Amino acid sequence: MVFIDERTGLELMDQIECLRLLETKEIGRLGVIVHGHPVVLPVNYALDGDNVVFRTDPGTKLDAAQRSLVCFEVDEIDHENHAGWSVLVHGIAEEVAAPDRGRFERLGRLPIDPWTGGEKAHLVRIIPRVITGRRIRS
Amino acid sequence: MVFIDERTGLELMDQIECLRLLETKEIGRLGVIVHGHPVVLPVNYALDGDNVVFRTDPGTKLDAAQRSLVCFEVDEIDHENHAGWSVLVHGIAEEVAAPDRGRFERLGRLPIDPWTGGEKAHLVRIIPRVITGRRIRS
Repeated sequence: MVFIDERTGLELMDQIECLRLLETKEIGRLGVIVHGHPVVLPVNYALDGDNVVFRTDPGTKLDAAQRSLVCFEVDEIDHENHAGWSVLVHGIAEEVAAPDRGRFERLGRLPIDPWTGGEKAHLVRIIPRVITGRRIRS
Repeated sequence: MVFIDERTGLELMDQIECLRLLETKEIGRLGVIVHGHPVVLPVNYALDGDNVVFRTDPGTKLDAAQRSLVCFEVDEIDHENHAGWSVLVHGIAEEVAAPDRGRFERLGRLPIDPWTGGEKAHLVRIIPRVITGRRIRS
C-alpha cells in the first residue's frame, strides 16, 4: 500500500514493500550512537526474515550490538531521473553468539560478503521495531 | 596521503582527499540523534569550502541543526569489483539564517537541487570537526 505525502510528493511505502526492497540490496548504512555522537557506517548485509544481519570484527559496529537502538538505511538513487527510494529500519541490535546454535548456524550461511579483510567472525542482527520507506518518482 | 589498515586492507584517506571526493557527489546520508535514537536520512548537498550545506523544510533535519553534533556520510560503491570509498564528516549543524546575509546569499546560490517537493527554504551547514575516509580497492 502506498500513501502520498502531499507537501513533498513522496510516496510512503508499507512494511511489505520496504522488506521487498531490502531484499534487493547488499549494502546499507548503519546509524549508531558512539559516546553521544551519531555515527553512520556502510555495511554489507542480508535479511533473515525481517532481521537485518551483518558480520563484523570487534569495533564500533560490534560495540553497538549490545541490545542497543540502531537504525539501518538502504537506498537506491537514480541520479539521471532524480528518482529513488530509501528504507529506514529502526530496531535493536544484538550479537548472535555461538550458544544460540540454530540461529548462529543459519545466519552464518547467509550470503553476506564483506568486502574488507579481517576475520568478521561476529554476527549481528537488527530486530526491527519500525520499518519506514519513502520513494520519489521522477 | 594514504595509510593502510593492515588488519582490514582499508586505505585511510587524509582530509584533502576526503574533501576532493565530497566534491564529486550530490547525495549523502545525514546521521542525527532524535529523542535518543540514531536516525539516518539521505539529503542532497553541496560544499562551501569544507562545510556541507543542504536545504530543508521544518522537520527532523532542521531540528537537528540547532548547533548539535551530526555526522554526514558519503560513499561510492562499485558492486562489480567490490571496491569503493566512504567519507564521514563529524561536525556541528547550524541553520544559516537571513540575518547572516553574506553567507545566506552565498549558500543560497550553491547548486543544491532537492529532488522532493516542498519549499526547502531553510539552509543548514555542517561545520566539520573531524573528516575521515576509507577506501577499498578491488
